[in-house]
Amino acid sequence: MIRELKIKVFEANLDLVRHGLVLFTWGNASAILRSEGLVAIKPSGISYETMKPEDIVVVDLDGNIVEGRRKPSSDTATHLVLYKAFRGIGGVVHTHSTFATAWAQAGRDIPNIGTTHADYFSDAIPCTRTMTQQEIEGAYEEETGNVIVERFEGLNPEYIPGVLVENHGPFSWGKDAADAVHNAVVMEQVARMACISYSINPSTSMNPHLITKHFYRKHGADAYYGQ
Amino acid sequence: MIRELKIKVFEANLDLVRHGLVLFTWGNASAILRSEGLVAIKPSGISYETMKPEDIVVVDLDGNIVEGRRKPSSDTATHLVLYKAFRGIGGVVHTHSTFATAWAQAGRDIPNIGTTHADYFSDAIPCTRTMTQQEIEGAYEEETGNVIVERFEGLNPEYIPGVLVENHGPFSWGKDAADAVHNAVVMEQVARMACISYSINPSTSMNPHLITKHFYRKHGADAYYGQ
Amino acid sequence: MIRELKIKVFEANLDLVRHGLVLFTWGNASAILRSEGLVAIKPSGISYETMKPEDIVVVDLDGNIVEGRRKPSSDTATHLVLYKAFRGIGGVVHTHSTFATAWAQAGRDIPNIGTTHADYFSDAIPCTRTMTQQEIEGAYEEETGNVIVERFEGLNPEYIPGVLVENHGPFSWGKDAADAVHNAVVMEQVARMACISYSINPSTSMNPHLITKHFYRKHGADAYYGQ
Amino acid sequence: MIRELKIKVFEANLDLVRHGLVLFTWGNASAILRSEGLVAIKPSGISYETMKPEDIVVVDLDGNIVEGRRKPSSDTATHLVLYKAFRGIGGVVHTHSTFATAWAQAGRDIPNIGTTHADYFSDAIPCTRTMTQQEIEGAYEEETGNVIVERFEGLNPEYIPGVLVENHGPFSWGKDAADAVHNAVVMEQVARMACISYSINPSTSMNPHLITKHFYRKHGADAYYGQ
Repeated sequence: MIRELKIKVFEANLDLVRHGLVLFTWGNASAILRSEGLVAIKPSGISYETMKPEDIVVVDLDGNIVEGRRKPSSDTATHLVLYKAFRGIGGVVHTHSTFATAWAQAGRDIPNIGTTHADYFSDAIPCTRTMTQQEIEGAYEEETGNVIVERFEGLNPEYIPGVLVENHGPFSWGKDAADAVHNAVVMEQVARMACISYSINPSTSMNPHLITKHFYRKHGADAYYGQ
Repeated sequence: MIRELKIKVFEANLDLVRHGLVLFTWGNASAILRSEGLVAIKPSGISYETMKPEDIVVVDLDGNIVEGRRKPSSDTATHLVLYKAFRGIGGVVHTHSTFATAWAQAGRDIPNIGTTHADYFSDAIPCTRTMTQQEIEGAYEEETGNVIVERFEGLNPEYIPGVLVENHGPFSWGKDAADAVHNAVVMEQVARMACISYSINPSTSMNPHLITKHFYRKHGADAYYGQ
Repeated sequence: MIRELKIKVFEANLDLVRHGLVLFTWGNASAILRSEGLVAIKPSGISYETMKPEDIVVVDLDGNIVEGRRKPSSDTATHLVLYKAFRGIGGVVHTHSTFATAWAQAGRDIPNIGTTHADYFSDAIPCTRTMTQQEIEGAYEEETGNVIVERFEGLNPEYIPGVLVENHGPFSWGKDAADAVHNAVVMEQVARMACISYSINPSTSMNPHLITKHFYRKHGADAYYGQ
Repeated sequence: MIRELKIKVFEANLDLVRHGLVLFTWGNASAILRSEGLVAIKPSGISYETMKPEDIVVVDLDGNIVEGRRKPSSDTATHLVLYKAFRGIGGVVHTHSTFATAWAQAGRDIPNIGTTHADYFSDAIPCTRTMTQQEIEGAYEEETGNVIVERFEGLNPEYIPGVLVENHGPFSWGKDAADAVHNAVVMEQVARMACISYSINPSTSMNPHLITKHFYRKHGADAYYGQ
């Protein structure tokens, strides 16, 4: 099972490149085996061109290396906080994809103004608050996870499978690593289209009934949709 | 004839990918055999990479499956309304292409400000009105077709072969599936150029004589143009 | 010599596609053999994928077909006006490339605000005036050439090897067809960069000494530059 | 060692093309062998498609050709000024990449508003002042180097490995040619994202603690980071 998890995480990391979401090593994907409490994640600073499935690192939920000769991604602590707080998720992705990162830098939620967005997210894609000096100078990567979790108080992470970390970039998640990659691609595309829509019409908005319709025809008990 | 129709619809769907108009499964193309009242359309939720010609579904104008083991695209009801209302069209395409969708999200008609646009569309590309709660919660996909048809009261769908559904995205049509794909590509390109033109000069407009000249040198009895 | 001219025009037309300047058949390149007064140009409405060198049409300066079984591009009359008025040019290109067309739609000259621009153009890339109803409804393609020539009164077409036709798109020229293609690529890139610069700083401008320096280190008797 | 340096400079120049930073011959990369005081640089005006490692020119720090039958890039004088002033650098790159050049044309520093930027640059990417008529009409390429060096008074070029030359374009540097190319790619991407962020939120800024954290977790004695 761990072997299979590592191959899936390996493939998810390469898919980030195929979808044009990462430059150099600026991204990482992970997945969790809930039954064992083990997380497989991209190794630190390694090139996508030379990475092999056996380079994927396996850690427990405290960040101890269980398998692998490499250092896990420096963002591992953030991934672990998300797995511990959002119990329904199986994969996490972080990228610096162009438009999602631009919204994160701008410190603005990506508003839900189109059915493309509403097909995947039940509301705006939230942006976290400014981190304090103490959080930044402390356990920074873990605190990054904490401000994400804080931002989701009252929100359902399975219905809003992504977030913008202010001045940094997007994190997304899903039922497994491939699903988290899929949501990262969606975030980048809706970020791009929202940016263009606002340049055309600064007061763009969407009917809340349309949001509800699009989200629930694809999610939950009454889902029926496929294009 | 139905075999041939399915192959053409299959090819039209793949052309949407080749032209960069669809991510994942976010698009569909169909065509009608008027003599039989049958429509061939992309199956629901299937990947473009694995789709085969025999996966294309054939339905009658009431949406009953006549041939094929798969479910037709969830957008089938919208396509059928268009075939019934616009008697001169032979193919329909729906995508979430980036710039056309951004204009749809902005709720604005794409203005006719260049000869590229006027070569294909005799006027602005219209955007539909906001749908009511009742329409959204009722037969939504069929009502989507209805608001398109309502928007074309007084307009000639053969001279304006496309529309933006507000907060959703573009639909286009043509004499067959390939022509509808062609018009989808044109819509995306004119949407992109109009957006850039407005960012350069917010009061951009075009001489109506130039619109008339460009449209009618390519359409109708006196057409003579080819670049 | 005519055989050679046709091959060069054929290659120039394909280069427009390779450089991403044309969608479908939205562009054409031509070249002139001054000694014979003959112009080779792309045939009308033919696909770039199936075009062969023998499809290139040869016309005299009055537009009479001298060689070739196809109709010449509908834009031939515009090309011929340019060859007759601008005696130093050997090739002409017309495209609907995205950013240059967006500036043409906006009805604005592309200002000379960077050395990339000044390396090729000694001044702004001018935009033509609005055409009259009479010009549009008359010999439209020839009149398009006439408004370009009118716009160049007092300007040196060899130092400003391109123009925007208002609400339409760019024409460029050069010493031969390949050089005209090169200038079309430059126009698209400087159009794109100027658009972005204005979005960053609406009062962007450039020191006239820098324009002079960059243009004349590449052109005229004292040229010395190569990157 | 000179043979090796030439091959590395050859590869660095081709990498500029692979990363989409240059059109035609609009870019150049060089590297220095400090022990010998020799610089290897791209030859002038040569096409990337036909360039071979033996075409790379070797000059001394006064610009005298030591090896190679071709003329060195016209920008050589600028590179030499940088090598002489910034003693810790081993490679220099100049491009006209789209977004970095657009910021240079706009005459604005690229502000440090995201962690992508702060991972590589400890502050904004500075833009040089307007050059005087005398500088432009004098030893222009050398004076271009001088205004860069002037702009870095009080700044650490190893912590800010790039600059915008006003109305011209970006220069970047690094420990060797490959590193300078890497920083050129980063500059283009942060230039693009900053431009989009400002279009979303004109008052975008970043917490200085976050800048410090991101820069120093990758640079200096306490560096630990790898994605």
